[in-house]
Formats: sequence, structure tokens, C-alpha cells
Amino acid sequence: MVKFKLGDNMDKVMEIAKRRGFLWPSFEIYEGLSGFYDYGPLGVLLKRKIIEKWREYYTIKEGFYEVETPNVMPKEVLKASGHVDHFNDPMTKCKDCSEIYRADHLIKDETGEDVEGLSNEKLTEIISKKKIRCPKCGGHLSHVWSYNLMFQTLIGPTGKKVGYLRPETAQGIFVLFKRLMRFYRNKLPFGVVQIGKSFRNEISPRQGVIRLREFTQAEAEIFVEPDNKTHPKFHKVADEKLKLFSAEKQLNGEKPEKISLKEAVDENIISSELLAYHLYLTKEFLTDLGIPEEMIRFRQHLPSEMAHYAADCWDAEVYMGEFGWIEVVGIADRTNYDLKSHMESSGEDLRIFVEYEKPKLVKKVEIHPRMDKIGPRFKEKAKKILKKLKNMEPEKIKKELSKNEGKIKIKIDNEEFEIYEDEIEIKEKRKYIKGKKVLPHVIEPSFGIDRIFYATMIHNFVEDDERTYFDFPTDIAPIPVAVFPLLNKKELINLAIKIKKDLQKEGLIVNYDESGTIGRRYARADEIGIPFAITVDHQSIEDGTVTIRNRSDKKQVRIAINKIPDTIKKLIKGDIKFHELFYHEELLVRD
Amino acid sequence: MVKFKLGDNMDKVMEIAKRRGFLWPSFEIYEGLSGFYDYGPLGVLLKRKIIEKWREYYTIKEGFYEVETPNVMPKEVLKASGHVDHFNDPMTKCKDCSEIYRADHLIKDETGEDVEGLSNEKLTEIISKKKIRCPKCGGHLSHVWSYNLMFQTLIGPTGKKVGYLRPETAQGIFVLFKRLMRFYRNKLPFGVVQIGKSFRNEISPRQGVIRLREFTQAEAEIFVEPDNKTHPKFHKVADEKLKLFSAEKQLNGEKPEKISLKEAVDENIISSELLAYHLYLTKEFLTDLGIPEEMIRFRQHLPSEMAHYAADCWDAEVYMGEFGWIEVVGIADRTNYDLKSHMESSGEDLRIFVEYEKPKLVKKVEIHPRMDKIGPRFKEKAKKILKKLKNMEPEKIKKELSKNEGKIKIKIDNEEFEIYEDEIEIKEKRKYIKGKKVLPHVIEPSFGIDRIFYATMIHNFVEDDERTYFDFPTDIAPIPVAVFPLLNKKELINLAIKIKKDLQKEGLIVNYDESGTIGRRYARADEIGIPFAITVDHQSIEDGTVTIRNRSDKKQVRIAINKIPDTIKKLIKGDIKFHELFYHEELLVRD
Repeated sequence: MVKFKLGDNMDKVMEIAKRRGFLWPSFEIYEGLSGFYDYGPLGVLLKRKIIEKWREYYTIKEGFYEVETPNVMPKEVLKASGHVDHFNDPMTKCKDCSEIYRADHLIKDETGEDVEGLSNEKLTEIISKKKIRCPKCGGHLSHVWSYNLMFQTLIGPTGKKVGYLRPETAQGIFVLFKRLMRFYRNKLPFGVVQIGKSFRNEISPRQGVIRLREFTQAEAEIFVEPDNKTHPKFHKVADEKLKLFSAEKQLNGEKPEKISLKEAVDENIISSELLAYHLYLTKEFLTDLGIPEEMIRFRQHLPSEMAHYAADCWDAEVYMGEFGWIEVVGIADRTNYDLKSHMESSGEDLRIFVEYEKPKLVKKVEIHPRMDKIGPRFKEKAKKILKKLKNMEPEKIKKELSKNEGKIKIKIDNEEFEIYEDEIEIKEKRKYIKGKKVLPHVIEPSFGIDRIFYATMIHNFVEDDERTYFDFPTDIAPIPVAVFPLLNKKELINLAIKIKKDLQKEGLIVNYDESGTIGRRYARADEIGIPFAITVDHQSIEDGTVTIRNRSDKKQVRIAINKIPDTIKKLIKGDIKFHELFYHEELLVRD
Repeated sequence: MVKFKLGDNMDKVMEIAKRRGFLWPSFEIYEGLSGFYDYGPLGVLLKRKIIEKWREYYTIKEGFYEVETPNVMPKEVLKASGHVDHFNDPMTKCKDCSEIYRADHLIKDETGEDVEGLSNEKLTEIISKKKIRCPKCGGHLSHVWSYNLMFQTLIGPTGKKVGYLRPETAQGIFVLFKRLMRFYRNKLPFGVVQIGKSFRNEISPRQGVIRLREFTQAEAEIFVEPDNKTHPKFHKVADEKLKLFSAEKQLNGEKPEKISLKEAVDENIISSELLAYHLYLTKEFLTDLGIPEEMIRFRQHLPSEMAHYAADCWDAEVYMGEFGWIEVVGIADRTNYDLKSHMESSGEDLRIFVEYEKPKLVKKVEIHPRMDKIGPRFKEKAKKILKKLKNMEPEKIKKELSKNEGKIKIKIDNEEFEIYEDEIEIKEKRKYIKGKKVLPHVIEPSFGIDRIFYATMIHNFVEDDERTYFDFPTDIAPIPVAVFPLLNKKELINLAIKIKKDLQKEGLIVNYDESGTIGRRYARADEIGIPFAITVDHQSIEDGTVTIRNRSDKKQVRIAINKIPDTIKKLIKGDIKFHELFYHEELLVRD
């Protein structure tokens, strides 16, 4: 039994995926649209199981609450987050045939060199030096320019309000931070997750379901005190080993190494306990889906490829045959980049109060903007000026006033204003303070659900002499159970339908099939990875038992009909293993 | 106890919704964006429960499979579906201050008259005749014009490929029909559902969560033989009564009437059994959410307001105080409108073969386009011409050729071509045929999940002398169970945490709270509708029992700690009622 053969198995998987209704290229009858895929009936079931498993990890076990924010976002938000300015791909165009290419991908295809993250100037230079031409027509290529990857739209009828489809679900959480902070009663750390669509207007999406223009993310944003990136359960997993491919090893041309989390944190390979803990959780999650541990590694981002918001970032990569190692999860330390940006852009205080262990005696400068003076002078701008002043460090205001002849300059909506000394009252006090306001840091595990879905398909695919089937874990299989009447006889059919209904009452999706030989029905069920098949035969009428067949080893055992729903539920959950049924004779007997 | 007070309760509900984390206006820190709402932590949980309940009805009980198709769609699809041309709202603009209004809403606000569905000319006339002016500045209003409600975007880097955010999830299913037909082994009837976001760029969204620009739909498309709109279970519900407000009653100024489904179908008030059955299912679903039956009615669309694709359509409306009766579900007979449009636009045969009861002997005309002649003459267009000819009625081709001097005209991509007699071979045969190809009709129940969410909140809200709480059904409540240590003592806390973990292992979201008096904790739990609260006290340490308190009547009962997870799960599912616990003494005893 070969669980994963490189190369040709992947085509077989896609063939079954299309034929049986897991995945279909979108808009096929209109000649398709690259970068978009439909989930068919079985695909949706599998995807939902994967997402439910994810929730089990993050919302149940880690206790993070979930939010749902819009796909459409106004420009202000994505301007603040840096996406309007920095979320770009380098692009080049053929001067002859007008075909458009992603410059770094084109260079990689032509030279084998990985040039991701290089500047547009550098890429233009390489294209020119290496004499790279349009692969389609041989024409000359243009200078490389930046192309923003967000889908743009207009909100409302005025034609003036620019919006974008979100490039990540994370921003919805950051924008909500003030509300979330109150929901969690202003206590760090806390985590918030979002599962939903994100959109990237890729220049030329390739690799099927791996590079999509519309995709599903499951992201957790974990807000922590900047100087406390620990996890209460870290000690439980500290000795677990992961295959790590650090930036240093990559740059030195070395291989990934299996080391313990403790060592990785102690030697500063992974920048914090919390980040390391989430690497481990990610590995656990992926192996729960049936992806073998040896097909998973964690690769650290090189300084050159790090996103504009990240301080340290590790990709969980799964080996996918011809595609190589593919990123399926990114686990980043985003520091306070996002909250800081949104605090500056919106003028809202997004800091959270953190208590010291014991109060400290400090000299404290307080500033009180005088609304009686600022109000009349600035009118409708006064409120924003007030907000801005209150968010500034009082010490800084005091310094600037004394340095700058009793004036301080502030910027509101790109306009500069001068505030005078007599418009701000400054008080100095010595007092005990209980804590300080901090802007939390963020650790973010970000899961690409479509790629994980695909990895789950290919790594559970089994081909042996007789069969091709998906050996999905029992709680991941899209359809958990099949019910077949052995023969096309009314009494068997009626009983089979009754069994099907009993299973449906438990909320299970049941594959009921009465067409073709029992062998063909087993084969069809195996092919889509149904772990358990119940067959109703003549003996069922006589003694009230049926056979349950186990997909993975084709073994069969008889149990009493009224024990079916409970037994199947336990088998799916893993509370009982199939081979254990042989030792549970009480299951053969009706209550 | 008043379960629903009109008017002021709705403000209270929204106050709690915001304060406790059900619903928040989106992008608040950036001054908001009307038509968008965030679901907070409790909101997501409640929304998910509503969607799970919906799946129980449609995917488990009705057996419809679910698909997931993209939010972004290419223009071709929505051109074919009619949305590019017909999905418009009438708009008018103030000539002085440039404010934009939805013309029909403005007229209704100013005159009380319902003018939905009238032509732009008619609306312009009314504005002029009734001397309606800009409500903001009193200025004159422009002519009424049509404004397309879809969000537009560009796909890919060329700037030429126009796309839209889908205005309904249904189109994704229609475009997939060919694949789905094969998945269901070419047998009618079958149903397919989709749950996901849809987008409408409303001119000026009002009424909070009721009119959103981005919203969640759960839609079922049920494909049937055109002349068989029955349902196998109709007889089981035929005598059930629904409050129906037929088009006739509306036009006659009469009131809605409670009549049986059988009567409604027999008297042709509802156009088919299948439509009637889904009206009933909708009522069942809504009452399962705790919405009282007397707050639900079904209103038939007037001919003037019927969508461009529908033959008969009923809205399930829920009474929402100041907003009046609000549509939350639309149940439409879309006939073959969509499949026909997509078949014509894409050139794909979307018909399905339906067997006759017994074979019929018929004279049959077959046409065989001669590729040896069509190919060379039309080159790259030949394939499309061939497809077109094959999709046409052979009889029609024969007639046209004889009528039209041996020529037939066909249109491909808006270009006209002439095909000659000698390019088409015509054969006539007499033979038995087993059935015919038909274009299925579609019955569509379409649920607006956000409005249903809102209806669920307001209709479960209870205010009495002591408390305000949500009396959510136990299986709908966002958080099903709370665990409190009675006192802040280590042994009670440890035991409470253990109980919490045992419940989490069963996949339950648990509210653990140790802050404040027990009374305040009960009040906080009641306010968000937690049905069961477990309190750990000194007796728990001694005899291993805890109290469970029932939210709805505040009664308490003791049970053994190891019976908690199973009992709570049964209580949530409704397999046991809280008051029955008093008679189950075995629950007091540890196993």
C-alpha cells in the first residue's frame, strides 16, 4: 500500500475530485475563469469537516471567540493597514503582444532563480541582462511596475467611495479591536478568530486550487502584552520536535532540522514561546487531517520575503509532489504594526491597560487641552484635534512646546495645524500608578483552507492493486456512512431506508445506494472515502443484525440494528476503533 | 411575561446586541459605512446555530447537497441571468445639493404610497405632480433613472475583464447545473443548496441589519420536471394551516387568511404542492428559532413586484414592530428561466432526459450538421455553430429550411450566419423513444439569514419585572451552558474548571465566570440567553453534585458531576426537558 506517490497520483486525485463532485473549475460552461474553483457536494462536506476541526482547536480548546466582518472594506482601512500602498506584485508586459506577466515568476520560470522580494528596478535589470523575452511571442518586455493585488469596487451610488475586497480576514479583527477589548473585559491575552473569504487579484493564477483569486482563510489573532509572549501550556509541548527550516539554514544552504520547541526558543530560532506553541498546534491539526508528519515542515521567512507587517514568520509547508513544498499556514508575529497603524489613522485609542505587579511611584505629566480656546478657533476640526492631542505622549507635547517657542504642530487629515501653549494646560503630579497602557502585539496563525483541503485530498489518497480510495480519518470523511440493501428486494430496501433515517436523525449525512452489485457499491463508496458501509441482508430480517464494513481494511463485523447509530457515532469520533467491535459481543444483541 | 413588546423593546435588543457582542456596525473607528454589520463573538455563535438548524432541514431531512461557488462572477454569467440589465433600482438626484435617493422609497416616505415596481417615467411623473422636493435642502429632483445594484470590479491585470459580486447565491448553482445533473445521476427531482454571502450596492441602506449591502443567504434550488411539482411528503402536511396573504386579497384590500395547504393548492392560491410544502417547511424552521407562529405570514408577490425570473413567489414575513412586516424568506417558482438563459448564452445543453412511463412510437427528425463543409467555411466559429445547431429543435430547422429557400440563419456572439441546406443532413425515422429531454423548472426557497437572525433576537427577548433575557430555544442559544464556582475558593474553582473542560471535550462552548456575586453572574448569563448554568458549591466537594439552573424559570436541580456532559447535551437537544430532571433520581448518583 502506497499512501502517497509523487507525480501521477495527483492527476488521479484531480480526476476523481472532478468526477465525483469534490472540486470543479468555476464557470466551466462559460469557458472558465482562472483562479476560481467551485466546491461540489462532497467538497463542501470535506471543507466543512476541516473547518470544524479547526474550530475544535482554536475556538473550543484555545477558547478564542469568532467574529464575522465584511468582505467589502472601505479604502481608509486598507490604506491604514498598508495594503493600498504595499500589497503589490511586480508586473511586466510584452511590448508586442500585450501579454502580462508576473515578473518574478517569469524570471524563475526562465532562469530557475528565486527573485521574490527584489525591487522593480532590480527585476527590470535581470530581465534585460538575462535577455528574457515574452514566452508567447518572443517580444521585448516592458519595465517592471507594481500592480496592486486587491479587487477594487465602488460603494454606493456616488461613484466616489472606493472600496476593496479584503485581502485577508485579519484586518476585520484589527478594526474591531476596541469592541473586542471590551468583550474580553480589557484583559490580555485574548484571541479572536475569523473564517471567511479573502481575495487577491493575481496576475496569472496557476497551479489549480493552490493559487486562487478567491479563497478561504481561517485566521486567529492573538493579542498579548508586548513583553509576554508565553503560553500557559508551553511546558506540555516543549519537548515535542518539529522539522524547522530556519532562515539561517536556508541562507547557508543547509537542510531543515528536527529540533524540540524548547531548544528552538532557547536558541532564538523561533522568536517566542507563543509562536512556537502555535507551530506545534498547526502540526497537530494537519496530522489530524491525515497528512503524514514527514510531509510537513516549517520554513522561516527570509528577511527579504517578510510581509510589511511581520517581525518573525514561519510557514507550515506541505510537500505536494510536482509542486514541491507549498505553504499552507503562515504563523507570524505581527508585533503592534496593525493596531498602531489603525490607531494613528483613525485617531482611536487602541491601547489596553495592563496592571503592574505592584503600583509604581512616578512623576506624571498630564495635559488638558482647553476646549474653550480650541473650540472657537478650529470649529468643526476641534474634536479631531482634541482626540489627537489626547493620544499623544504628554511628555512629548511638553518637550516640543518648550523647544518650539510655545507652539506644537499636529496633522489632521493631511492638514497641518499649530496649537499654542495657552491652549493646553499642563499639570505635573507625583503619584502611584497601577499600570500602563500598552498597544498589544499580535501573534497570527493564518490557515489557507483551500490548500489544506487539497493537501488532505492528496495525502489521504491510496492506490493498491485492487482499489483507489481516500483513507480520510473517520471524523474528516465527507460522508461518514453508507447504507446498502444487499438485494433489490422490498423488505431489505425498507429496512435499509429505516436505518438510513435513524442515522440522519443523528445529523449524519448518509450515502444510500441500491444500484449495481454490492461490489460496485463498495467501490463507489471507497472511492469517495466513506469509512463505514452498512449492508442489509436476509439475516438482517431474521436476527436483526447487519454487517458494518470498514473501508480501510475491508473487514466486516455484524452488529444489532438498534446499536447502529450509537456505534457509528463512536466509530466516527474515534471513541471506539473498528477492530475493537469484534470483542464487543453485546453489540450483536438487541436491547 | 411579555415576549414581544412593539417599539421600545427593539432599541433595548440593539443596545444589548452591541454591548454584549452580538452585532456591531462595521468600521466604527473609521466613522462607519452604512449597509455593513459585523457579527461579534455571540453573534457568530447564534448565526452559526441558525445556519446549522437550516442545514438540518434542507441538507439532512430534504437530502439536498451543498455547493460553494465564488462571490466574484464574470459579467457573462450575470448578463445571461438578466442581472446586468434588470437588477436596477430607480434613482433620483437633487439638482441643488447632489444628494441621491431611491425614488420609490422617497415617494413612499413623502406620500405613504407604495410605488415599488413602477416605471422610471411613472415615478418621475409622480415626483413632479406631487411636488416632491429634496428632503435635505428642498431642491428640485432630477428625472428618475436606473441604477444597477451590483458591485462591479475588474478581474486580472488587463483592466478589460469585468466582474461583479454576486447578487444572489443561486446563480452559482445554475451555472453548475451540468455537473450537478451528473452528480445526481441524471435523475429529477434533486435539490442543491448554497449558503454564503451576496452583495447589493443599495443606494441608501437604512433599517440597520434589515437592509445590508453585504448579507448572508441560504438558498435551495430544487430542480423538477416541469409538469410534476409535487412532493412525496405533501400529504403529511396538507391539513396544516398557514396565514396566507394572496395577491388577490392584497389587491382587494382584504386581510390575510389562515387556510390549509391542501385548500390553497386546490384553489390555485399557491401554484403547486411543492411550493406549498416549502412554505410549510419555512414556517416550521422559523418557529424552531423561537419566532411565534402568529408573528409569521406568507405574502404573495403582486404581479407588479415579481422578479424578472419568477412565475409565483411568496415571501415569509415576520412582524418586526416599528418596521412592520419584513420579508425574511422568499419562496419562488423560477420556472426554467435561469437554465434557459444560461443554455442560450453558453451554448451548453442543460436539458435532462426524463423517461416516459412506457416508450412512445414517434416520427423523428434527426439533423446531422456536416462538419466537412461547415468546418472549412467557418473555421474557428465552426465549433460554436455546430453546438448551436445541435441544440436547436430539428423540426424547427427543417421547417425553416423549406420556408426560407434552403437557408437558415443563426446567431453566434451577436453575429449572424447563414447555413445552407447541403451543410445539414436531415434524416427522418420512426422509432420508439423512451423519454424526452426537458429543461427542469426550479423551486427556490431563499432565506435571508441576517434578517432571520434579527427576528430571532427580537422575538426571543423577554423583559419582566426583574430581568431582561433572551429566551432562545436551547439548541439555538449562542452559548448553551455556564459554569460558576459559587465562591472564590481554590477547591471550588478547580472543580468548576474541570467541569468546564469536560463540557468543552463534548464540543460545547462554555461560559466560565468567577467574577462578582452569583446573582450578577446569573444576570449576565441570562442577558445573553444561556439556557443552563451550573454552580459548584461546598456540597459539590462533599457529595459530588452540582446545581443546574434553568434560565427560563430560574428553577434549580442537583445532579451528579459525572452526569453533567450527557445531561446538558440531552437538555440542549431537547431529548429531556429541564422539569423532567426532578423525576430522574438516578442523575443524582455517581456511576
